[in-house]
Amino acid sequence: MTPSKTKKTIASYFIAGIDIGGTSTVIGLVDNNNNIVQRKAIHTATYEYAETFLEEICDTITNFDQLSDISLLKGIGIGAPNGNYYKGTIEFAPNLRWKGIIPVVDIIRQKLPGMPVILTNDANAAAIGEMMYGDAKGKKDFIMITLGTGVGSGIVVNGELVYGHDGFAGEIGHTIYIPNGRQCGCGRKGCLETYTSASGIVKTAIELLNKKSDDSELRNIPVDELTTLHVGNAANRGDQIAIDTFDKTAEILAIKLADSAAHTSPSTIYIFGGVANAGKVLMEPLKKYFEENLLEVFKNKIQIKPSALHQNDTAILGAAALIKKAL
Amino acid sequence: MTPSKTKKTIASYFIAGIDIGGTSTVIGLVDNNNNIVQRKAIHTATYEYAETFLEEICDTITNFDQLSDISLLKGIGIGAPNGNYYKGTIEFAPNLRWKGIIPVVDIIRQKLPGMPVILTNDANAAAIGEMMYGDAKGKKDFIMITLGTGVGSGIVVNGELVYGHDGFAGEIGHTIYIPNGRQCGCGRKGCLETYTSASGIVKTAIELLNKKSDDSELRNIPVDELTTLHVGNAANRGDQIAIDTFDKTAEILAIKLADSAAHTSPSTIYIFGGVANAGKVLMEPLKKYFEENLLEVFKNKIQIKPSALHQNDTAILGAAALIKKAL
Repeated sequence: MTPSKTKKTIASYFIAGIDIGGTSTVIGLVDNNNNIVQRKAIHTATYEYAETFLEEICDTITNFDQLSDISLLKGIGIGAPNGNYYKGTIEFAPNLRWKGIIPVVDIIRQKLPGMPVILTNDANAAAIGEMMYGDAKGKKDFIMITLGTGVGSGIVVNGELVYGHDGFAGEIGHTIYIPNGRQCGCGRKGCLETYTSASGIVKTAIELLNKKSDDSELRNIPVDELTTLHVGNAANRGDQIAIDTFDKTAEILAIKLADSAAHTSPSTIYIFGGVANAGKVLMEPLKKYFEENLLEVFKNKIQIKPSALHQNDTAILGAAALIKKAL
Repeated sequence: MTPSKTKKTIASYFIAGIDIGGTSTVIGLVDNNNNIVQRKAIHTATYEYAETFLEEICDTITNFDQLSDISLLKGIGIGAPNGNYYKGTIEFAPNLRWKGIIPVVDIIRQKLPGMPVILTNDANAAAIGEMMYGDAKGKKDFIMITLGTGVGSGIVVNGELVYGHDGFAGEIGHTIYIPNGRQCGCGRKGCLETYTSASGIVKTAIELLNKKSDDSELRNIPVDELTTLHVGNAANRGDQIAIDTFDKTAEILAIKLADSAAHTSPSTIYIFGGVANAGKVLMEPLKKYFEENLLEVFKNKIQIKPSALHQNDTAILGAAALIKKAL
């Protein structure tokens, strides 16, 4: 892939905003007016070693043709699964092929000496993006839920992102829906992620296809090729098994989000990421079950809605905002 | 009951700290050096109307003989189940007999015009007490869990109590352990409180007594007279059914506290309240199961331990600290 030009601009400075995902990683160049002037996607999973992956990221940034002079780059902000804000590491990320602790910030600083680099959890970056550029502007208490390869979350309390004592706060995807439930990539069982991630939803669809005898267009797709996109499209065309799949997914997510509401009492919960693109087949039952499952004092006062920003933009702008806040 | 003298002191001012519980309410008089100089307990459940209950509280405070002059009283701080910090109300408290919304602060202000009155959730008050006078001094991120008639929680993030957008944050007792589990006083099913409150533990003991044929000293106590204190004492004497009861309780609490850790990543979780007095029969399995259930990134870094303060003192001092912080 070659970097694509998107917009010609006269900028006083730039920030690189990077969204590392289990499937793909998007590297964006953001100008001082918060325009993403250039971007490139790479396939995360094809890189056997984190070092070569991070080298590709550095090369992409320095080769962006909108960045005429590296001295105009004020820093690199990164959102990553299991990213640690304090340590600049990715640690034990179930959905990445590099295991253990990856010192991402240190590796990049070796390649680009003196460059400010800040890393946080991918969902935290999305939350910051929503707070600075999206619907959460001015909101003090909200939660960002990302539904994709994994299920992440960024929790904002009193206008500040919650990092916790060790920088790993906001792992709602790894709260337990059912003790001893589905096996999770994290090594435990029954995590929310195993039910509401892209692969979790496909698993539910397959369970329903096996359990029920209803006609379904999903039966025409080989089981190992079935994706959430197929299930979402089928649901939006009225396929009952697909609708039931999203209904069950929504119910499980709602029960766990009612738990999250009981922790920090947010005014809004935003749903973000590939799975959220399914639209009303997910959001309508989600709102219904969420309301049903809330403790009395929280009823009719917590909004649950899709992120107001374009998916890639939110993550890139949020990652870049880590540097912008530090400038 | 008459107010009891506990200590003679020369104080420059006083604050009343009140701990409203489902069973009993303790009214304390705290001097400017944080000594509880006088206290009185009343039985919450005997008051049919919230107004007469609150009148009794006001009368108790104004009649404390250590309070020679009402002008020395700088305010009244209150911890109460389902207490709302922003509105000064108790709302839909499952373990109190007064239903709906009780405007506690307004009622007290009518009786004592001009008096500063601040109310919060009882567990929040305990968290503030632990932070100002106990083991949590200087700690930025911790959670206080109260185990008693109900199960409450106070969540501290970055040195500040989490109130949420509406003042009701910190209801971990009403997160769901098992969907469609035990009926909760809050109207929903499967709440943590139904398993780890005083009555929840007794229920588990009865279930185990019915299920198992082991000898147990608990069989000598009529079922409707069985209390957590009986179960705790029996467990500490080696009674297997009682030990198993606390083991099961600890396992359920641990699974849900691992969920809470995944939200705000605290350095410490404090266990507080009557049930916590059972001691190691609760705490040892709790620590074990908590560690087992933590997500990899949180393992071996979150302490779980009993509150360092005397139970009644923490709640009273924490409630008084609401006023002290505002002075």
